[in-house]
Amino acid sequence: MIYLDNAATTKPLKLALNQANFINEELYFNPSAKYHGGVNASTIVKTCRENIAKCLGSDFDVIFTSCGSESDNTAIYSYCRRGNFVTTLGEHSAVYEPFIDLKNKGLDARFAKINKDGSVCEESLLSLVDENTVFVSIVHVNNETGAINDINKLAFECKKKNPRLIFHSDGVQAFGKLPFRLSSNVDLYSVSAHKIGGLKGVGALFKNKKIKNLKPLILGGGQEFNLRSGTENVFGIKVFELATLDKYKNITQNYQKINAFKELFLSKLNLDGVEVISSSNSSPYVLSLSAVGLRGEVIEHMLELDGVYVGTGSACNSKNPHSRVLKEAGHSAPVLDGIIRISFSVENTEDEVLFAVQKFNENVQKLKKAMKK
Amino acid sequence: MIYLDNAATTKPLKLALNQANFINEELYFNPSAKYHGGVNASTIVKTCRENIAKCLGSDFDVIFTSCGSESDNTAIYSYCRRGNFVTTLGEHSAVYEPFIDLKNKGLDARFAKINKDGSVCEESLLSLVDENTVFVSIVHVNNETGAINDINKLAFECKKKNPRLIFHSDGVQAFGKLPFRLSSNVDLYSVSAHKIGGLKGVGALFKNKKIKNLKPLILGGGQEFNLRSGTENVFGIKVFELATLDKYKNITQNYQKINAFKELFLSKLNLDGVEVISSSNSSPYVLSLSAVGLRGEVIEHMLELDGVYVGTGSACNSKNPHSRVLKEAGHSAPVLDGIIRISFSVENTEDEVLFAVQKFNENVQKLKKAMKK
Repeated sequence: MIYLDNAATTKPLKLALNQANFINEELYFNPSAKYHGGVNASTIVKTCRENIAKCLGSDFDVIFTSCGSESDNTAIYSYCRRGNFVTTLGEHSAVYEPFIDLKNKGLDARFAKINKDGSVCEESLLSLVDENTVFVSIVHVNNETGAINDINKLAFECKKKNPRLIFHSDGVQAFGKLPFRLSSNVDLYSVSAHKIGGLKGVGALFKNKKIKNLKPLILGGGQEFNLRSGTENVFGIKVFELATLDKYKNITQNYQKINAFKELFLSKLNLDGVEVISSSNSSPYVLSLSAVGLRGEVIEHMLELDGVYVGTGSACNSKNPHSRVLKEAGHSAPVLDGIIRISFSVENTEDEVLFAVQKFNENVQKLKKAMKK
Repeated sequence: MIYLDNAATTKPLKLALNQANFINEELYFNPSAKYHGGVNASTIVKTCRENIAKCLGSDFDVIFTSCGSESDNTAIYSYCRRGNFVTTLGEHSAVYEPFIDLKNKGLDARFAKINKDGSVCEESLLSLVDENTVFVSIVHVNNETGAINDINKLAFECKKKNPRLIFHSDGVQAFGKLPFRLSSNVDLYSVSAHKIGGLKGVGALFKNKKIKNLKPLILGGGQEFNLRSGTENVFGIKVFELATLDKYKNITQNYQKINAFKELFLSKLNLDGVEVISSSNSSPYVLSLSAVGLRGEVIEHMLELDGVYVGTGSACNSKNPHSRVLKEAGHSAPVLDGIIRISFSVENTEDEVLFAVQKFNENVQKLKKAMKK
């Protein structure tokens, strides 16, 4: 099996699972318990928090959540109560749907246009930000195309227009992949464990130490500085920390390795009937292609029969046959029909990439011929 | 080590972890993915959902969440928007704090009185329910005293006063422990995996099939029938299912075993200076005692030195030295000072229980003597 759908989820890092397993065996105590074992569990959470926080700079605290979606929702519903709030048409649904919800409630939710590669149109964004904007949310790396938004710069530009606004970014596809630090203009940043070798059910919200008025989505026992109640998922948090440290240890080398995979794939790609959606300066971890006029899910299925797992990058269903984001990016129906998302991990090999592109080429040509008959 | 703090959290069931581990090894795919592996992961979640749902009756669907607190918050914030809503002064903070939040927002949140054992005062409860009540939430088993509220009967009585209200119960300390079925008058029921041998980070909300207008707390990809977005925690859900099936396989025998532990403990308990807070008809899984006039956390620490782990059953801190619930139940300051919570599991043995009560007796007398000097 050649797994090239790492933007959807990753295989949990075996070493991290093994190293964290003592928590389920010996240190399963509730971190709120006052005896030794409880205090130890609480200390583990604290250490994980600090180790993860410092990956992105020194200005941030980490609040553990149950997923990237929860992190996004917590940020948005904390601040989007009055004034106006701005996001983009290229967001993951965990940001887009809350904004639609706010709009449906009659609030002033605004959506900036996006470019053909899925990145935000800066002009459109800045035209929407004004003195009444309380919150801006821009995805760091687009999950469908890999387009990188320069969030440090965008946060700076937005705050030049209104220094009081809160700037949030969904960093789920950037964290542990792009080498970067968050500038002090960024206030909140959402990440997810299972996209980088951690377990599903764990996420975090990076919170700039200087911001106030973040509000919990879940109230109760007051865990996570009263910002996220519920017994801490100590095991999941420890696996997350270990996976994070593993990624950050070699983040630049990993990036170069993945970039070489992307270049290799593109160099062997038969462009006859195929369009590359991702731009050349996108994150190499996500490569979006279209077998124009063909059906992406058919190619996905053909590749699966060859042992190659890829995504279509959108939640196709009978109501929405096409990706909302790529449609907003201005792609035509035949392009939208044929979308395939290849997302690499450092676990992949050059041989796997070569095999995958060869099979992709073959299957596209095979399907084209079959369609002509 | 003798672990008697199972109401705080339990040791994950080793067999369940081992049996579910193939998910992290081979079936880590995103359940939304359309290839074979994704469909398999999705099928596992579906099967777990059905197997867990049928433990409490045939009228319920299960929505997976990240914890009992999230389940409670989802239920409360779905319905408590207008009219009035009634809960009790004996609730876990995951229900109590959202109600306080609603009250602080100027909404009509009402709190029924509780009896000395922590159970709800039925008269007080029913006096608060009227034709404008939209939501009632009553904890099934009190987490500090084990007091059982007869939620099927209470739901019936509440609906006799107003058939349109939604009846919710926090069942975190009852699920997998008490042999019972939910009546069709109960609309929503919150449970947690880590209280019955599952992992932290997984919970569920049982939803009566006939109710409408449940609203997601977390918006996004539309997982869990659009009622809880975020990639499904397949591994955690599978461990939860296995732990649940294990508990329900022998639920009556387990109950009898735990009841025998409680009786044994009480039969050997030196009542000189000790008050039993739990009533005789409470859940045997939770036994609340007070070493009147002594400090519970000191006894907790002494017991820890003897290898016996118990809880104090409240989140003591400098602001709130006493349990909110037991204070509301009408206990005096010296009783509140000395609270100790013993919570059994089927993993415990008779010898452990005997050792624990012996050490409890010794330490209480030792501390009393030390205090007199």
